[in-house]
Amino acid sequence: MKSSLSCGTSPIVGLRFSIHPMADNFVEIIKGALSKADTSNVWMHTDDVSTVMRGKEIHVFDTAKAIVLHAAATGAHVAFNGTFSIGCPGDTTGDSYLEKEDVLVNEPNVKDYRQYVSSQFGLYPMNNPDYMAIIYKEVERAKECGVFNESMHYASGLHGDIHDVFAFLEETFMHARSEQNKHLVMTVNMSINSPSHKGGS
Amino acid sequence: MKSSLSCGTSPIVGLRFSIHPMADNFVEIIKGALSKADTSNVWMHTDDVSTVMRGKEIHVFDTAKAIVLHAAATGAHVAFNGTFSIGCPGDTTGDSYLEKEDVLVNEPNVKDYRQYVSSQFGLYPMNNPDYMAIIYKEVERAKECGVFNESMHYASGLHGDIHDVFAFLEETFMHARSEQNKHLVMTVNMSINSPSHKGGS
Repeated sequence: MKSSLSCGTSPIVGLRFSIHPMADNFVEIIKGALSKADTSNVWMHTDDVSTVMRGKEIHVFDTAKAIVLHAAATGAHVAFNGTFSIGCPGDTTGDSYLEKEDVLVNEPNVKDYRQYVSSQFGLYPMNNPDYMAIIYKEVERAKECGVFNESMHYASGLHGDIHDVFAFLEETFMHARSEQNKHLVMTVNMSINSPSHKGGS
Repeated sequence: MKSSLSCGTSPIVGLRFSIHPMADNFVEIIKGALSKADTSNVWMHTDDVSTVMRGKEIHVFDTAKAIVLHAAATGAHVAFNGTFSIGCPGDTTGDSYLEKEDVLVNEPNVKDYRQYVSSQFGLYPMNNPDYMAIIYKEVERAKECGVFNESMHYASGLHGDIHDVFAFLEETFMHARSEQNKHLVMTVNMSINSPSHKGGS
């Protein structure tokens, strides 16, 4: 099955991310979040700069949101920085975990958490002359979803409850891929429990 | 002068970035780094998630390196996350600071700092069918420059002295733009003073 997938058409979704707790006990917070999340549905590897996970789209988003929420639940000011990617022509077909069933393993544990998040995202549909139209369409979608915050240079601001923001990002990541140009990259930065967020909103 | 620049052909280089000190006194470290760097050659604006700077390429890289170095000099474990961009068709011609002279204002103050950095970067030449060839060429350049660390999913690892790594990134950002497709995005993550870096290398 794996070897029959040609490069650039693989449904493997990847996320390279870092969690940055602005606290002296950052190691404890990061390790705690990684251990509290159920990471069994994704392939994961951590190096000295970031962590990469690969798998089905639903599991990558489910696992990422759980890790962020478990770190946020400590009350520390936490930043999440991630680059989602699919369809890179240079991608390999390994480390995929595409055989996992479509049952979310983290959502039942975190769905009742409430957490305000301020976020910024950028969409990069590769090798696509129509990429600006795709970006504008997804920014419109953010407005319709009620998570749009503000326009800015080089990104678009989102905010709201973390479940709403993650749901928008997952939907956008699915919609912004075209049949002809499957390589899509999306950068996401989140700020949580920031002293800049007065009263949590 | 500004109004004669058409969208997508502007030489304005932008950087949206965050500095994340993994320490309880993160506010002090961030504010200290921003105040110690000379930011007079770039336009800057900070919001609750990140900071954006715009200006000539040489000044954006000079200012960014100085901010990172001043934060690193505190000894704290610091992460830098940045997205460099040029030539976005949706960009405006304002907030540009393109009239600044070509004299680096930070380099004389930071050139004697030595700082090991482990970094990961991604290049996204937009609307360009040859983008993968451009990426591979720049990875080869990293190897020739002696800053290449390792291959990985969704990024390439760099490491070494921060001056060498920044010099490579600036050169790559210049070389990866083609005449036909000027919109280029480059993501950079850096980890500094990490407990994972044994003995500083």
